[in-house]
Amino acid sequence: MKKNKQSHNYYMCKGINNAIALLESNRFEIRKIYILLDGRASKNRKINSLIVKHKIDFLDRDNFYKRYQERKTQGIIIEFSGELTHSFFPSFEGIDNACLLALDQINDPQNFGQIIRTSECAGLDGIIFSKHNSSPVSQTVMQVSQGAFVNLPLYEITNLSQGLQELKKNNFWVIGIENNLSAKVWHKMKYDGKIIIVIGSEGKGIRKKILGMCDFVSTIPMKGKSNSLNVSAAVSAILFERLRQLEAL
Amino acid sequence: MKKNKQSHNYYMCKGINNAIALLESNRFEIRKIYILLDGRASKNRKINSLIVKHKIDFLDRDNFYKRYQERKTQGIIIEFSGELTHSFFPSFEGIDNACLLALDQINDPQNFGQIIRTSECAGLDGIIFSKHNSSPVSQTVMQVSQGAFVNLPLYEITNLSQGLQELKKNNFWVIGIENNLSAKVWHKMKYDGKIIIVIGSEGKGIRKKILGMCDFVSTIPMKGKSNSLNVSAAVSAILFERLRQLEAL
Repeated sequence: MKKNKQSHNYYMCKGINNAIALLESNRFEIRKIYILLDGRASKNRKINSLIVKHKIDFLDRDNFYKRYQERKTQGIIIEFSGELTHSFFPSFEGIDNACLLALDQINDPQNFGQIIRTSECAGLDGIIFSKHNSSPVSQTVMQVSQGAFVNLPLYEITNLSQGLQELKKNNFWVIGIENNLSAKVWHKMKYDGKIIIVIGSEGKGIRKKILGMCDFVSTIPMKGKSNSLNVSAAVSAILFERLRQLEAL
Repeated sequence: MKKNKQSHNYYMCKGINNAIALLESNRFEIRKIYILLDGRASKNRKINSLIVKHKIDFLDRDNFYKRYQERKTQGIIIEFSGELTHSFFPSFEGIDNACLLALDQINDPQNFGQIIRTSECAGLDGIIFSKHNSSPVSQTVMQVSQGAFVNLPLYEITNLSQGLQELKKNNFWVIGIENNLSAKVWHKMKYDGKIIIVIGSEGKGIRKKILGMCDFVSTIPMKGKSNSLNVSAAVSAILFERLRQLEAL
């Protein structure tokens, strides 16, 4: 059963950072590695030290690009299998400071990938997103995340509000990032303890039902004429403010 | 002379946010507006209130896409002329808190566009970049900036170190964002007063010569396994930390 399931979850991913993250981790089964002869990856020391135990196909330019016409490969493609996402939360018992990001219908794969990348760098404990009306962990998402998808737990759940409810029962506080009247400016909010930070899509914000589940609402006031901070830039501002606060504790 | 020069600087730009920023500003001369009949822009109230004084070509789907095959137009294209960048700094005399971002050889137009967008939202006073070895303000940059390129001064100079030198004479302090031994953690750095924050490219960081001109060096320590925060995410973390500090003054 496990084997069968795995053979369906067969992925392809490209680029040096993704390759390093995959090869350093034991989470996935590496199926194939294609390296472009004299390409950037073939000259990368770390890649060369990591691939020794694997079966590699070195391809010349014609054969490499016959298989993979795409850009941004940096001369390496890895095929792997396994589970990209988790469907259940671990127990967060005994942990003082835990932070999850809940994405409410973020559809743009560029934004999703960037958010994964930033979150992993900011020491987050995971990202929650729903199966429906959200960008899946696509190849673009993996590519933009620069390997962070390997090391950051991604919780793909059927129902976001049920997921939040479950975590609230486990002593998580929910902070929605939304510009409304009750919103506190982002740096006056406290981010210690067990928290979930909810982010909505750029166009629509957080849905009413989800907003109703938030214990606190926080916002980043805009200082320019344009009124639209990119969602992944907002995530960065907030997650690093959290780290600043934790270091000051 | 002026007229002649302008006719060379003829640009095309797309999307609702870019169109609103352009139409609200007096910086550029609007030459042509193309709107897709029954497209998103044609139904946008703000767009409709802003275009009344202009000559518009409403095009049906075939004719719109015959002219512009590209994606992400949101049904509006504006052709305009003027100067996208400045070559001289204004006097910053009498200003207590001014912050410029200096980009040292940022080549990626996505990153450049995002940095412009984030900087405008964070109330920055401008971005400095050099004519050579940097992404110019291309159509992709404008598109990604979501109109912020209109409202944020962009200083395109021949020589970045000369530019920094000039600003240092005018009482600016230079803070380089770079992970080295003398670097202070980003939230321990003080960002009040007149400062220039220098950011290097993702691959190479800040060049030695430029780093030598920095009065301070600051860094964002990574908390995950991957070691690479996107450059525009780093900019976001730092510029909003600056705003936090200014609000606490």
